[in-house]
Amino acid sequence: MRNFTFSNTTKIIFGKGAEEKVGREAAQYGRKVLLHYGGGHIVRSGLKERVEKYLKDAGLEIVELGGVQPNPRLSLVREGIELARREKVDLILAVGGGSVIDSAKAIGIGVPCQGDVWDFFMGKAEAQETLPVGVVLTIPAAGSESSTGSVITNEDGWLKRPYGSVIMRPKFALLNPELTYSLPPYQTACGVADMMAHIMERYFTNEPEVGFSDHLCEAALRSIIQEAPRAIAEPENYGARANLMWASTIAHNGLLGMGREEDWASHNIEHELSGIYDIAHGAGLAIVFPAWMKYVYKHNPSRFVQFAVRVFQVEQDFCNPERTILEGIRRLEEFFRSIGLPVRLKEAGIPADRFEEMAEKATADGPQGSLVPLYKGDVLAIYELCNS
Amino acid sequence: MRNFTFSNTTKIIFGKGAEEKVGREAAQYGRKVLLHYGGGHIVRSGLKERVEKYLKDAGLEIVELGGVQPNPRLSLVREGIELARREKVDLILAVGGGSVIDSAKAIGIGVPCQGDVWDFFMGKAEAQETLPVGVVLTIPAAGSESSTGSVITNEDGWLKRPYGSVIMRPKFALLNPELTYSLPPYQTACGVADMMAHIMERYFTNEPEVGFSDHLCEAALRSIIQEAPRAIAEPENYGARANLMWASTIAHNGLLGMGREEDWASHNIEHELSGIYDIAHGAGLAIVFPAWMKYVYKHNPSRFVQFAVRVFQVEQDFCNPERTILEGIRRLEEFFRSIGLPVRLKEAGIPADRFEEMAEKATADGPQGSLVPLYKGDVLAIYELCNS
Repeated sequence: MRNFTFSNTTKIIFGKGAEEKVGREAAQYGRKVLLHYGGGHIVRSGLKERVEKYLKDAGLEIVELGGVQPNPRLSLVREGIELARREKVDLILAVGGGSVIDSAKAIGIGVPCQGDVWDFFMGKAEAQETLPVGVVLTIPAAGSESSTGSVITNEDGWLKRPYGSVIMRPKFALLNPELTYSLPPYQTACGVADMMAHIMERYFTNEPEVGFSDHLCEAALRSIIQEAPRAIAEPENYGARANLMWASTIAHNGLLGMGREEDWASHNIEHELSGIYDIAHGAGLAIVFPAWMKYVYKHNPSRFVQFAVRVFQVEQDFCNPERTILEGIRRLEEFFRSIGLPVRLKEAGIPADRFEEMAEKATADGPQGSLVPLYKGDVLAIYELCNS
Repeated sequence: MRNFTFSNTTKIIFGKGAEEKVGREAAQYGRKVLLHYGGGHIVRSGLKERVEKYLKDAGLEIVELGGVQPNPRLSLVREGIELARREKVDLILAVGGGSVIDSAKAIGIGVPCQGDVWDFFMGKAEAQETLPVGVVLTIPAAGSESSTGSVITNEDGWLKRPYGSVIMRPKFALLNPELTYSLPPYQTACGVADMMAHIMERYFTNEPEVGFSDHLCEAALRSIIQEAPRAIAEPENYGARANLMWASTIAHNGLLGMGREEDWASHNIEHELSGIYDIAHGAGLAIVFPAWMKYVYKHNPSRFVQFAVRVFQVEQDFCNPERTILEGIRRLEEFFRSIGLPVRLKEAGIPADRFEEMAEKATADGPQGSLVPLYKGDVLAIYELCNS
């Protein structure tokens, strides 16, 4: 187990009516709030109006910026930075899912920064301070509500890049599972793949002696696999929605990766897909992750046997580890299919004609991943496996 | 799943050499440190001298108060409060295990309080502020290094009482598994029982729809059961020590209980034992917890079947849940015995002649537990089961 530092300072308020506490929480950070959100759903559902009321009841002034798209765009982040500076806002409140939160975090570190916010994402600068960010979560998936990271897409070249810092953890996050009742099955499933991928990026490691967090990762995966079909079959099942929502937060608040070397190749390989094709990140991960597993398992077979046996209860073939491993991957794909996700590019309508370009971009800053460092040729081979 | 609020603000610095960072961390809270510790072990091992050096190197002034005993005493807490006030200390640094940390926390809330610190533990007052507390952990067991609670024994009547508040979480905790190499097998085993009990107090609940944290609790228990014999057989096995140390923190930082109704009857029933007989808390729990399980399982059989099957891999007897349950309890006792713990009072040299008095004291403030509220007669029956 590696040395680590862990501190998760985000205050999670979870349960029915959680969003009603937004005024009290937000008021601790100042007088003026930038209300940041995506499309029309939170308007149509009445959530936006309710949140505005809670904020006003707490004596807060509101500036708003909607229009965040999935795979949130740098141009809107820049617009938000300008707006927040001009209006001198004290807090950015993200009402939505991971894209809205990521956009809010990028605005947060952009406002006090002298240079270009994109420099953080290009690895050219480190964020030193941020405006505080609060969250009313509507989509359990990205875990951004208490994570350190943000992923932004620069439309100039469609570069999708992550950046993270401990200062970027939201100050508070209000999680009401009832707000997720209206998520359609496909979007629910995409969230499930995203949270599972967050766990698996941490799980597949060469680091020895991480038995405790292995067990926690496996437990979280099994629970998500158990709850997801329930949430999809019964969208208003509070228990299923609540367990998924809490799982999505824990999957990505850092806890499950402590002491481990994490991988993240699949995420970065997927980012090229959703950067270009605007496929939902979770759907892209359901395609890329099994392909990555098929490509890398030979480098650490015992870990993939453990995954198959402990997560998917594959009856272990002790004489033939490979059979066990491949059955584990098959069951992962079968699970993704069963909740309506694509597991091949063609099932998502993505053609095979830009693999070369994507592999080039994915490895432009060096090899991806740590279980096995993957160079351009490796990433190309994984895109091919996504298609086979 | 119940509504909840979760925020764990303790900064955990984990790994080899973690204690070397104590100067940097402590210096963030002021200039004068109350160094609080127990007996001679940290002196003999040279840890105290090293910690003093790190503090002085960071420009800090040290006041010291040693002598914390297992089941930490109110009299020493009062002495610490006087000392901290007189010396105007800025931070209390606990170097030791749960008893030292609990004592430090009690001093912390006592210093700024106008009234009597014991009033907090008797439920007569709520702590509003505290001196900051930091930790260098030497015994993985109590989880007090990032928990909200403290348990103090008042020698006047040997009352052992818990108190907790979110303000009591330590500001930082430095966890170096190497510092636990010197823990003798029995003390290691007592720590194991303590951390398992912290999980089981949260696990045995009537709250429905807590599948995600069920899985996490079961995973944590399985991992502890796997690591404990290794740490006992090979005291300098870093991996085993590291996994146990991290498990003990997570077992009691609050996470595993979120959304659940927790029980805590076994802890309170045990407190009477260790309050009177000064038996190690973990050893007392190894006796009380299985007895409690035998007494209450009929009220929620499916939960005890789940425990047996998922934690101890009991082959389920679908026609006879009771057989499965009792086999689970038997395996828990067998596990405790295998690591050298007593599972009956007589094995710990505790006589049967004060059950009435202990049952009376345990229920003086009302019934104990929430899975089943236990009145005096119930607690008496559980003490009898501890003896049978």
